[in-house]
Amino acid sequence: MLQAIQWCGDHLRLLDQRHLPQQTRFVDCYSVQQVADAIQNMMVRGAPAIGICAAYGIVLATMATPADTLNQPSLDAAFQLLAATRPTAVNLTWALARMQQCFQDGTVSFEDVLQMARHLHQQDLQMNQQMAVLGASLIEANSVVYTHCNTGSLATAGVGTALGVIAQAAAQGHIQQVLVGETRPWLQGARLTLWELQQLHIPAALVVDSAAAHFMAQQRPQWLIVGADRICANGDVANKIGTYGLAVLAQHHGVKVMVVAPSSSCDASLTQGADIVIEQRDPREICEVHGVPIAPAHSVALNPAFDVTPAAYIDVLVTEKGLIQQPDSMKLKALLWPD
Amino acid sequence: MLQAIQWCGDHLRLLDQRHLPQQTRFVDCYSVQQVADAIQNMMVRGAPAIGICAAYGIVLATMATPADTLNQPSLDAAFQLLAATRPTAVNLTWALARMQQCFQDGTVSFEDVLQMARHLHQQDLQMNQQMAVLGASLIEANSVVYTHCNTGSLATAGVGTALGVIAQAAAQGHIQQVLVGETRPWLQGARLTLWELQQLHIPAALVVDSAAAHFMAQQRPQWLIVGADRICANGDVANKIGTYGLAVLAQHHGVKVMVVAPSSSCDASLTQGADIVIEQRDPREICEVHGVPIAPAHSVALNPAFDVTPAAYIDVLVTEKGLIQQPDSMKLKALLWPD
Repeated sequence: MLQAIQWCGDHLRLLDQRHLPQQTRFVDCYSVQQVADAIQNMMVRGAPAIGICAAYGIVLATMATPADTLNQPSLDAAFQLLAATRPTAVNLTWALARMQQCFQDGTVSFEDVLQMARHLHQQDLQMNQQMAVLGASLIEANSVVYTHCNTGSLATAGVGTALGVIAQAAAQGHIQQVLVGETRPWLQGARLTLWELQQLHIPAALVVDSAAAHFMAQQRPQWLIVGADRICANGDVANKIGTYGLAVLAQHHGVKVMVVAPSSSCDASLTQGADIVIEQRDPREICEVHGVPIAPAHSVALNPAFDVTPAAYIDVLVTEKGLIQQPDSMKLKALLWPD
Repeated sequence: MLQAIQWCGDHLRLLDQRHLPQQTRFVDCYSVQQVADAIQNMMVRGAPAIGICAAYGIVLATMATPADTLNQPSLDAAFQLLAATRPTAVNLTWALARMQQCFQDGTVSFEDVLQMARHLHQQDLQMNQQMAVLGASLIEANSVVYTHCNTGSLATAGVGTALGVIAQAAAQGHIQQVLVGETRPWLQGARLTLWELQQLHIPAALVVDSAAAHFMAQQRPQWLIVGADRICANGDVANKIGTYGLAVLAQHHGVKVMVVAPSSSCDASLTQGADIVIEQRDPREICEVHGVPIAPAHSVALNPAFDVTPAAYIDVLVTEKGLIQQPDSMKLKALLWPD
């Protein structure tokens, strides 16, 4: 598989996911500003991936800072720049908080900062593997699963979150077919997930997002499997726009709902989904495709990038620390934030 | 408003809706084959509109037939060609059956055939107006409504079905906002409905189809208002893919569901939705946008053009003959087929 995020000694090389699957372009980022732009423009996307990129963004900022002033105040602007790129995925905040720990004892070395970023990168890879095994243990033979957006190796450092579970279940011979919603407006399902599934030789079929209910009624998939951008203390989940509707439809059709996300996507500071800031993106992302207008000039369009699925719609939450069936505040606290 | 279907003395002029709203191109059809192609290629679409086009297709076939052999056997090939263009919308079958009545007494005149086509065209216009008034009577002041696909003057001969109701309600000052689902893969909502609403100066906002649940939860629209391609004897409705999911989501959120369609969309011969033939269209319609691939080469895509909404999800069915609340077999028969 392509590595979407590569540290190259003195710069960060990112796969520009906006042009996949037609073109495989890499972009080299030499400054924290370039990394911030790459996150904001969705050159790189996926909650875990943007967390890792932000960590390397701090490494680049560190390189641009004189060694004798490598301390928190000198890096403040870089932290703020990265934190402001995208509001919904908490992995970004989480990764930046971990990077800040490097500076807690005053002035540090470049090597310490790089080591922390590499550690977060490596940790995500391991968490992916743990979640894949845990989630796949719930998937029975001959399962049809429905997934949304992209949660694979392009969205993470490793095999992915939801797609990692699907790949693991497929490796165990348990996946009959994956139904992939195209995921407007960015088409991550069509462009990225379908492409990853092809590479993995897993049978998959693309459908328009609005066809999900039809296929749930006709094919009765066993599972809806999705990732998450932020999970509240009570188990409410912010994820790609469309996830909430899919969860309601899944419940209606007896399709079980699995959310797969590392503990770095879980936010103990937010009580419930209503507290999550939903990113509102540029209406042009809806009104144009490949720069060609698909709506009349001067159209009003509403483009929330995420929605919130209440915990009541989720059958199981898969984290690297374990499974939570019918997630709620008590169960999340017990597994993720004991004491 | 633009006239999407115009009879021009010796040919049929059609607005090529595939290029709207960016380009206003008309295509002149001089043969039944050209009309059949226009219907199949979705140059013209919308259940009532394709019925009217098929009627004029028979007029063109009549013009190409020697006057002394203007009878049913001579026109058989033309009828079959048109009937095979698209399977789901029953208006096509209905219009062709009406045209066949011209020939029941043997050899007829060209004028008789043209008069019947003109009559069907005019009748659709009147039915639109009747449905608009009936449907709008149910819409209270300050309503937010959600609609899907295109059901306006481009899909019919007149003000439209669902969009006719919305326009009438707006004329009465009762529409606060129309939420328009973009309607992948053909984007009829983005390209056509939004454009028609702009012309009518009705406040509208475009959303991706998968955002419907989010906006139903956030804004609690009063109504989901859609058209229909075929309505069974028991009230089950085939309509644009996505309608079924919207109806399930509407019911879940306490949003009432209105289906607006003329009696020519109602099919007494089909007992229930499971009997409806769902058109499966070319996967390329999903895998490409404006000829640019959005999915990997050799992707499998499933592209049903319609889905079926069981009558149990429909609060009211609006036809030109009257309203049916909580439609079922008894109520449909009493209003539409009283014998």
